[in-house]
Amino acid sequence: MSEIEFPNGAPKVTALIQGKDTKGIIATITNWIFDHSGNIVYLDQHTDPVEDMFFMRIRWDMDGFEVPRENLDEEFSKVCWRLGMAHRLFFSDRKKTVAIMVSKQGHCLLDLLYRWRSQQLAVEIPCIISNHEDLQDMAGYYNIPFHHLPVTKETKREQEDQVLEILKKKNVDTVVLARYMQILTPKFVAAYRNSIINIHHSFLPAFIGADPYLQAFKRGVKIIGATSHYVTEELDQGPIIYQDVVSVTHRDNVQTLKRKGEDIEKVVLARAVAMHTENRVLIHNGKTVVFGG
Amino acid sequence: MSEIEFPNGAPKVTALIQGKDTKGIIATITNWIFDHSGNIVYLDQHTDPVEDMFFMRIRWDMDGFEVPRENLDEEFSKVCWRLGMAHRLFFSDRKKTVAIMVSKQGHCLLDLLYRWRSQQLAVEIPCIISNHEDLQDMAGYYNIPFHHLPVTKETKREQEDQVLEILKKKNVDTVVLARYMQILTPKFVAAYRNSIINIHHSFLPAFIGADPYLQAFKRGVKIIGATSHYVTEELDQGPIIYQDVVSVTHRDNVQTLKRKGEDIEKVVLARAVAMHTENRVLIHNGKTVVFGG
Amino acid sequence: MSEIEFPNGAPKVTALIQGKDTKGIIATITNWIFDHSGNIVYLDQHTDPVEDMFFMRIRWDMDGFEVPRENLDEEFSKVCWRLGMAHRLFFSDRKKTVAIMVSKQGHCLLDLLYRWRSQQLAVEIPCIISNHEDLQDMAGYYNIPFHHLPVTKETKREQEDQVLEILKKKNVDTVVLARYMQILTPKFVAAYRNSIINIHHSFLPAFIGADPYLQAFKRGVKIIGATSHYVTEELDQGPIIYQDVVSVTHRDNVQTLKRKGEDIEKVVLARAVAMHTENRVLIHNGKTVVFGG
Amino acid sequence: MSEIEFPNGAPKVTALIQGKDTKGIIATITNWIFDHSGNIVYLDQHTDPVEDMFFMRIRWDMDGFEVPRENLDEEFSKVCWRLGMAHRLFFSDRKKTVAIMVSKQGHCLLDLLYRWRSQQLAVEIPCIISNHEDLQDMAGYYNIPFHHLPVTKETKREQEDQVLEILKKKNVDTVVLARYMQILTPKFVAAYRNSIINIHHSFLPAFIGADPYLQAFKRGVKIIGATSHYVTEELDQGPIIYQDVVSVTHRDNVQTLKRKGEDIEKVVLARAVAMHTENRVLIHNGKTVVFGG
Repeated sequence: MSEIEFPNGAPKVTALIQGKDTKGIIATITNWIFDHSGNIVYLDQHTDPVEDMFFMRIRWDMDGFEVPRENLDEEFSKVCWRLGMAHRLFFSDRKKTVAIMVSKQGHCLLDLLYRWRSQQLAVEIPCIISNHEDLQDMAGYYNIPFHHLPVTKETKREQEDQVLEILKKKNVDTVVLARYMQILTPKFVAAYRNSIINIHHSFLPAFIGADPYLQAFKRGVKIIGATSHYVTEELDQGPIIYQDVVSVTHRDNVQTLKRKGEDIEKVVLARAVAMHTENRVLIHNGKTVVFGG
Repeated sequence: MSEIEFPNGAPKVTALIQGKDTKGIIATITNWIFDHSGNIVYLDQHTDPVEDMFFMRIRWDMDGFEVPRENLDEEFSKVCWRLGMAHRLFFSDRKKTVAIMVSKQGHCLLDLLYRWRSQQLAVEIPCIISNHEDLQDMAGYYNIPFHHLPVTKETKREQEDQVLEILKKKNVDTVVLARYMQILTPKFVAAYRNSIINIHHSFLPAFIGADPYLQAFKRGVKIIGATSHYVTEELDQGPIIYQDVVSVTHRDNVQTLKRKGEDIEKVVLARAVAMHTENRVLIHNGKTVVFGG
Repeated sequence: MSEIEFPNGAPKVTALIQGKDTKGIIATITNWIFDHSGNIVYLDQHTDPVEDMFFMRIRWDMDGFEVPRENLDEEFSKVCWRLGMAHRLFFSDRKKTVAIMVSKQGHCLLDLLYRWRSQQLAVEIPCIISNHEDLQDMAGYYNIPFHHLPVTKETKREQEDQVLEILKKKNVDTVVLARYMQILTPKFVAAYRNSIINIHHSFLPAFIGADPYLQAFKRGVKIIGATSHYVTEELDQGPIIYQDVVSVTHRDNVQTLKRKGEDIEKVVLARAVAMHTENRVLIHNGKTVVFGG
Repeated sequence: MSEIEFPNGAPKVTALIQGKDTKGIIATITNWIFDHSGNIVYLDQHTDPVEDMFFMRIRWDMDGFEVPRENLDEEFSKVCWRLGMAHRLFFSDRKKTVAIMVSKQGHCLLDLLYRWRSQQLAVEIPCIISNHEDLQDMAGYYNIPFHHLPVTKETKREQEDQVLEILKKKNVDTVVLARYMQILTPKFVAAYRNSIINIHHSFLPAFIGADPYLQAFKRGVKIIGATSHYVTEELDQGPIIYQDVVSVTHRDNVQTLKRKGEDIEKVVLARAVAMHTENRVLIHNGKTVVFGG
């Protein structure tokens, strides 16, 4: 991640916290922040009584905060440790570093790049990786390095190793599959656990797998959808981040379903990427908690 | 069907027509109507190039029409036969006769009855049939005969025979399953082919079968749905008439999913019943063509 | 308010808090609860940087809480006073007491009553008040006292005084206008400030005033809406609680717009009533903050 | 319009017809087509009983049609004249020629250009015209001539004349205002009557005029919208083609409203442009009839 100045004044820190529910978590954490002169600007929490789990997103000003930034994680860890809570900290002046993987279709990529350039997505995009050459021009227009790494059934592991090497070199922390039409190996998924975001062109769990628009056409549904989710080893089974739908009629054919679907695919993916990169998503037991912005 | 006077003046006739596409269908039919001094007040058609099928809904004034009502079906049949088209005719002064089957939950029944009483649904409802007694009061409030016919695994065929007898006696042409929590036998389905409308409390084909809200909760979806469809031998696989969805969040539990779902279930079912009883739905190859109102 | 046992075990208390934003509000309050052995089960807050305002909804178990219930408001007031915050407390075993006012159309009333009877709305409904007799039957079916108080331009003040007397006698704290087609006087509005919920049958601020469906038809909109809001002195200008919309086409006439609109009117009103009676709504400067359930 | 070969085989012709309703319109027209060996592939019609108007869109194969293309308009005019109907004919191998006008914001332009390049919009785009230079690069990437014509209050008439000259030279028949932040003069509007499509960033008729997102924020609405309409002399009062909405909450500020709004603005505009350029829109009395695709 590159160190940049955040537009809205002094940096803020966001903590994501999760663990078994217990008494006094909110009081302990907010009190610790208050005792060190921190001003909380956001707090949302969720208690899951079925799983007996507690989830929190809390954000405070670093301006005037009495724990120096370089010690913050260590000090905050002590607080969380005593509560039995897992946590992660994110500073507002360090954007996430996102690699985008694509195949031939460019509608999701174009949408992400436009949002990035118009500063709606506060991320770094150091590379675009594709198994085809079709979108090289688009990457060029936005001055982002484009890596063409073709893949066949036989070369998949080898190609993925090349991809992983690029991701490592560029310090990538999040991978966005913007209609990348390849199934990733468990090894790749494990390397970026809970950090690979996919867009599936159906309203999951309906129409898992290939050709969801063809499946939707054959079934005669009256609404189609798009689903953005984290990638896990099981195809299209990862935690869902965001979904949206659009109405269709008997007049629609596979091609018009595809077009209508693309309009929501790109929005659903962009929203999910924003939710993730704004550190608003927690994952537990195959599901997400998504806090408001 | 009972013979009643339609509110909007002189009766109209609606024809539903479907068959292999061929040249001149619309011209032949509209010309035949025109030649007999009919005034067409509605025409919508759909050509399915994949299936090479033609579908049409056409409606004209009987006022001044030169073919007497009692000969209309015979005369119109000749026209359709020459075109190789199947057809059905419906007169606006003959409402459909609808039986509603329910179990314990009343939200869909109440909604249908309210729409019926406030003349939004132009149907006759000669009976409500249930395997439980819970909704007897509600039927009573609306002065509709309520038949309590309990059912067990062992007595299902017997109970269905009793139901069929009632439906026959009341001249029922459409059966609405307003959250009737029993799977019908193929015999029953065959007796009312393309005339049994069910509401399934999920966005089909996601979450087929029992407890869709529990399934949705476990999967962590961000949108839930409801689907109204014709009943066929295969569970939840019949032609879809109408669907709608509502957003949910990580804060929802199975109970709140159920409540949010009920709000769309009743609207989706009511709309589907309206589409069917207004003779706007054609079925082909497991899918529906639904013409505008 | 009547004292009843809440279904989910021990009572909980919900505090709504709002005031000028300042450092340490969350820490102070959560710490105070924690210090008295309270278990926080819900916390959501919102900071409005434009207005420099802070809003919070916090809920904790009274089971084992060391401040006795009879002293709670007094003790909690001290905490809020020091922070310069306004507050209100609500106990989960005291339901809100809601009067419903109607005219001739029953779709919203019926929907509220069904939700109330099926325990989706945790409220008391001691009376239904109407300027017409049409819905007396419906009230009777649900065994709720129905007060028929006709009104003319000349008798409006007098009639409102009669209404206010009934509300007082029944200890009503919330008035729901379920398509009550009368404009209330400022005196009445002042008596139930921020406690009268109306459903307006348009997507406010479009189509303020009379006949919004006719206005929508004339303008040729492609979407219509419904808006639930608190009533203020200015017609249709009160803080908006909830809105929803539905698509329409050129085929719709004023009557079908009205029917489609009714489907969302009742849902929008019911949701807004739930939001209010679950103490999830705060009001500031003509707008609402609505916390998640 | 340039003459190009349509992808789906032989050209088709689409007729838009409107006028006072009378008996036999459909029969007369379909029969005329049938008599000349035409195969109708689409027909939709609408009767407006309030205005007593008839609207129709009908499409047939030119392949094997016995009226030569060069005589078609003349011959078809005779048929329509006898019925008292106005009409226009469009051939599928002649795309509409569309000029796009923009200011500084590029989200709508980018979306239109992407759809155009990926052949979702079957139009010619011979020029992009702007009062600012910001989007010159984007036009360049898509190899479309970009005309920078700055405008001030004083030079508006002069600048519009320059625009009109370009439009004339390029044979433009449709003007799309893709967030062009200038009000056009009546002269300009008259030159392209019913052929200028605008996107207004609100759910009209709510929030007419400047800064609709600021207006929406101040009013505290829970849903925002976008409206695409034909431009008339009266600001934001033209016939509405398409609208869509998106939910917002108290957490949204003017900036996030703007971002959420942009996601629907671009889709709403693109859909409206498709509806218009596919010749699916008829206008009467300030409203549109939009036939299905």
